[in-house]
Amino acid sequence: MRALNQRLVLDRLRDHGEATRPEIATRTGLSKPTVGQALLDLEQHGLVRAIGRRADRPGRAAVVYRSAPDAGHIVGVDIGRRVLHVAVADLDGAVVARIEQPNRSRSGATLVRTVGDAVDRAIAEAGLVAADIVVTVLGTPGIPDPATGSVHRSPNLPGWERRGLLGELTELLERGGSTVVVENDANLCAVGEHARGAAQGVDVVACLTVGTGIGMGILLDGRLFRGAHGAAGEIADLPYGRVPAGVAAHRPGPVEVVAAGDAVVTAARDAGLDLPSAKAVFDAARAGDERAASIVADEASTLARVVAVVTAVLDPGLIVLAGGIGRNVDLLAEPMRRELAQTIPVVPDIVGGSLGDDAVLVGAIATAKGTAWDLVFDRRVLGRSGSDS
Amino acid sequence: MRALNQRLVLDRLRDHGEATRPEIATRTGLSKPTVGQALLDLEQHGLVRAIGRRADRPGRAAVVYRSAPDAGHIVGVDIGRRVLHVAVADLDGAVVARIEQPNRSRSGATLVRTVGDAVDRAIAEAGLVAADIVVTVLGTPGIPDPATGSVHRSPNLPGWERRGLLGELTELLERGGSTVVVENDANLCAVGEHARGAAQGVDVVACLTVGTGIGMGILLDGRLFRGAHGAAGEIADLPYGRVPAGVAAHRPGPVEVVAAGDAVVTAARDAGLDLPSAKAVFDAARAGDERAASIVADEASTLARVVAVVTAVLDPGLIVLAGGIGRNVDLLAEPMRRELAQTIPVVPDIVGGSLGDDAVLVGAIATAKGTAWDLVFDRRVLGRSGSDS
Repeated sequence: MRALNQRLVLDRLRDHGEATRPEIATRTGLSKPTVGQALLDLEQHGLVRAIGRRADRPGRAAVVYRSAPDAGHIVGVDIGRRVLHVAVADLDGAVVARIEQPNRSRSGATLVRTVGDAVDRAIAEAGLVAADIVVTVLGTPGIPDPATGSVHRSPNLPGWERRGLLGELTELLERGGSTVVVENDANLCAVGEHARGAAQGVDVVACLTVGTGIGMGILLDGRLFRGAHGAAGEIADLPYGRVPAGVAAHRPGPVEVVAAGDAVVTAARDAGLDLPSAKAVFDAARAGDERAASIVADEASTLARVVAVVTAVLDPGLIVLAGGIGRNVDLLAEPMRRELAQTIPVVPDIVGGSLGDDAVLVGAIATAKGTAWDLVFDRRVLGRSGSDS
Repeated sequence: MRALNQRLVLDRLRDHGEATRPEIATRTGLSKPTVGQALLDLEQHGLVRAIGRRADRPGRAAVVYRSAPDAGHIVGVDIGRRVLHVAVADLDGAVVARIEQPNRSRSGATLVRTVGDAVDRAIAEAGLVAADIVVTVLGTPGIPDPATGSVHRSPNLPGWERRGLLGELTELLERGGSTVVVENDANLCAVGEHARGAAQGVDVVACLTVGTGIGMGILLDGRLFRGAHGAAGEIADLPYGRVPAGVAAHRPGPVEVVAAGDAVVTAARDAGLDLPSAKAVFDAARAGDERAASIVADEASTLARVVAVVTAVLDPGLIVLAGGIGRNVDLLAEPMRRELAQTIPVVPDIVGGSLGDDAVLVGAIATAKGTAWDLVFDRRVLGRSGSDS
């Protein structure tokens, strides 16, 4: 009962910001003494603090309380082929430390170590220790499979699919007592763009990430849709006509072969353009190079075809383009729309993501934030540790 | 309050079958006199009836009550290009009359009249009048658009897309006070197979209907998923490589052109087989005709491609094949599975629908049943008519 009252009071403070004891009593329906006791308890647990006094009535000044979002912290990780991003945030999702670290791992074991070190470094930079972290959310390419502690279909990260490896990383990050959640990076990108980016308030969103690989996160009514086996949006597998001969089936998938970063660089080289990256190809097109523009037009056509397929199945209200290639929405969206208008009856809106490189990390923090207060309350008030639950 | 108690008592009887007054009191937490009054009221409204007595304790025999599913009726309609199916059912979905009527309509206005007549005839056959019907659910090809009272993208029904025509039919069926709901037929097929057929208990279902046209109903967690504009599962629009030249874009969609009934008959004719219907082609294949078998193999390959696309986007737990062509699952499923195993990493289960021609009708009745009791209660107890709400 005492814990329940604390919970009620805490939720009020979190949902409605700072308040005095009488205000909380009015809003919760609890008596003032009960609220007073709950506030005392919550202060002792470090979940609430007094931040001053406010004159409610002449001659009286009530203490103003607010929740203490630094009662615990959360970590978001974006495991990219070239760069790892790690952010540490408080319980309200405000980022308190952030690091980027080049990913040069050539084996799964090195990747586990690199991620572990990066997370440790970010926590230290925030002036915290591992025990302060209540949830860690990792975004990775491929399909995480908690049952085997492995990641499936993540061909762009060397060695990362090895059986049990994801389990090792999870254990490493759980050391301080943190709950660890692993999610597909395109899914987190969609969550991020819906929480704080270009897809806010949209009911049916397909977030198409095109960069080193290709993936899609689907949000229905604001919730991630994963499908029956966690493989919804694995559009790398879409059958596609022009897969070069000799490419093994589904490693990577057909659409990935024709649409992701390497394909753009290869197409440029074939056209006589020696450019080091897909970004350079898009920059050249933007600067007026016709060969580059033609490659970009092909890419837009490929992506239009992907969107046509997604639209016929899912009828999304919004397509968000993200990732190193997808972000070139200034060059891609218009030709995509033109081609789509000739192939499907209703063309969905196509916009660029507004969070850029941060989308996966923002999605990871938003996901972690969803359970963080519950976990801190369980730990501090009910005395349950992360590993108990 | 009195209505609320009636509602509580009625819901108990509906959810748990017949019961005595003391049993209902125990289960609802209402007092025995309150339950007695509610039962009396419900009996007067015709929503509940006494069906006998049961000896609860020595010397006492309590009256046993049950809900009265004939307190109202519902109608389901399946508007097919060749046949209209109409069923009248009670509030529990038990069918009390059923008719099939050839659809020879060559204009939208004729179709409206034909459907209206068929519904009238079915109601009369059930010994009822229009005022007894509380909900009518219609399944139609295409996308119903209540805003304009029209059906979009229903090229197989002549004149049916005319603006306002669906509104005329709706008005006609509302005459007796019935609520009218119009739904895409492939969607209702999915609902039917989930409610009473091959997809019971499956969380992510794609029900692929291939017959005169091609469509797909998607159920997520048992609920119909319609997309942002009601066009989810409109897979007729899927881009498809082999669309014959000269076919106008999206009337019908590319996949419909290559995979639906006419395509099978045409392919047979091109192969020198003069067969009147897709059914005849499948029968010939089953009887060992090699030319027919080759056409069936092509059809399986086309449908495998559709399933590959749907799987990459949606990751369904089950694909249900339905419709005049889809039902030939004995010939289609195995080659589809073989081809899919070579194109996508995880092949979903593929089964035939178990409701055959009845799937859309079962889905319509299941949909109607979902709101029927509420509507009858509103009418009889609260005195609200269908047109008020």
